[in-house]
Amino acid sequence: MTLVLALPGGEELAARIAAHPGRTLGVLHVHHFPDGEQLVRVDEAVAGRTVVLAGSLDRPDAKLLPLLFAAGLLRELGAARIGLVTPYLPYMRQDARFQPGEAVTSASFAGLLCERLDFLLTVEPHLHRWSSLSDIYSIPAHAVGAATAIAGWLGQAPALPLLVGPDEESEQWVAGVATALGAPHAVLRKTRRGDFDVSIDGAGLRGAPERPAVLLDDLISTGRTLLAAASVLRSAGWAVHDCVCVHALFDGDVAARFAEAGLRVVSCNTVRHPSNAVDVTPAILATLAGAGVA
Amino acid sequence: MTLVLALPGGEELAARIAAHPGRTLGVLHVHHFPDGEQLVRVDEAVAGRTVVLAGSLDRPDAKLLPLLFAAGLLRELGAARIGLVTPYLPYMRQDARFQPGEAVTSASFAGLLCERLDFLLTVEPHLHRWSSLSDIYSIPAHAVGAATAIAGWLGQAPALPLLVGPDEESEQWVAGVATALGAPHAVLRKTRRGDFDVSIDGAGLRGAPERPAVLLDDLISTGRTLLAAASVLRSAGWAVHDCVCVHALFDGDVAARFAEAGLRVVSCNTVRHPSNAVDVTPAILATLAGAGVA
Repeated sequence: MTLVLALPGGEELAARIAAHPGRTLGVLHVHHFPDGEQLVRVDEAVAGRTVVLAGSLDRPDAKLLPLLFAAGLLRELGAARIGLVTPYLPYMRQDARFQPGEAVTSASFAGLLCERLDFLLTVEPHLHRWSSLSDIYSIPAHAVGAATAIAGWLGQAPALPLLVGPDEESEQWVAGVATALGAPHAVLRKTRRGDFDVSIDGAGLRGAPERPAVLLDDLISTGRTLLAAASVLRSAGWAVHDCVCVHALFDGDVAARFAEAGLRVVSCNTVRHPSNAVDVTPAILATLAGAGVA
Repeated sequence: MTLVLALPGGEELAARIAAHPGRTLGVLHVHHFPDGEQLVRVDEAVAGRTVVLAGSLDRPDAKLLPLLFAAGLLRELGAARIGLVTPYLPYMRQDARFQPGEAVTSASFAGLLCERLDFLLTVEPHLHRWSSLSDIYSIPAHAVGAATAIAGWLGQAPALPLLVGPDEESEQWVAGVATALGAPHAVLRKTRRGDFDVSIDGAGLRGAPERPAVLLDDLISTGRTLLAAASVLRSAGWAVHDCVCVHALFDGDVAARFAEAGLRVVSCNTVRHPSNAVDVTPAILATLAGAGVA
């Protein structure tokens, strides 16, 4: 029997993974000491078993040590195979030394996980300069697509929208959703000058507005990119009401800014957020079964 | 030239380590992204050099990734030897599986550091069930004693106190300070029932009160142990005004509780805190030189 354990915040995901013949749900106890240290404990027998740790790694600082401690513990206790199902995989955006002397943290972070895990599964990792997870993950690493789930949500609207990606990095991904939906798509061009300073160029738009535009991106953090893109689209005469993303990494102020701009944000349930509306768990479960996890 | 880089919060220590012939101070740039990720950058040439990363690792969650990223980066950039000088080394107290299924995080944490560093230096690590750092650290790991520095501070008082350790774990350590000071010492007995629930037994006290007692411990976190010990001592007729520790891991509420109990807390400058009064940097510098770091 495969044992499924929730990382902090991954309780619902773990329960859904475990609701499958051949799998059982256990508990990873995480204790927080007053001095800021953490301790993990597993009560179930794990020797010889496949163990799946489930939970997103957004805001990774507080989540990393419990994960690494748990993986090390499971190994000591004799687990046969240790996997991580993390709907959001952090640190993928630092995929080059953009300035001399910078760390390439996507690769460093991958190294940390690969030292302790046997396989990994995540949803729509930010693959831009890395062409696949296997460029930096030496363990089997499965990328679950969210395009079908997002197309399913978008398909509920009465009219097919124009799907717009805010920058070249989103092209391949937006094209996938457009294909699944049978809708047209376009991609804008972005210049980034800092964490909070981006500009968008609408040269990628062709044709006259004849349908609503929906903005699509793999993640929203500061929201600057999508807010600028909505502005460009509206200046060109397009109606824009919805922004759809996979990973909702933003908090209060950013959410308020979207609301002020008359934009609804819809996200996948990869990072827990009030905007979660697209369920990617079925896609995770299918990939997990395909990866040979009973 | 050995390059010395401050970890976040370690700026003063790094500057003092670097103020030595053969060493130079550099900058480890740490950038915090809005989504909670961090990035490190080093502008100095590091190829072929010894690099010392300096800073305490109390409240380790936010400090661990910058450290691991920095060490990985320095290795990639060709550093010959990478050392960590961390006045406070966390996770040393989980030195056994106290409950079945618990992680032994002192060993796991050591593994994380040893994978990326070539040597380590820390001040008064909590060695109880581990007899030395080499039990869990596979790299050269130097423990700097604080006894001499503390004895120097205590020696300024007009009368020699009775030095009292609150529990058996502190015995060896309190005896070291007592020897350096030429003062008598005693050790109480502790029963711990939870993070915030301890009781102290004064059976270790012998003789009648004839001098002030000073409580000594290696670290203060919740403060429950020392507050209970002060109470026991006072019930037995001893005057207690001072608690001296190495590592001050406590914040506001705990500090207020000591003040209400009429106790002054004095700590070493291993964890930045208003109570810092004993400078252990000279001892760190001496050990570093003894370890062959130019």
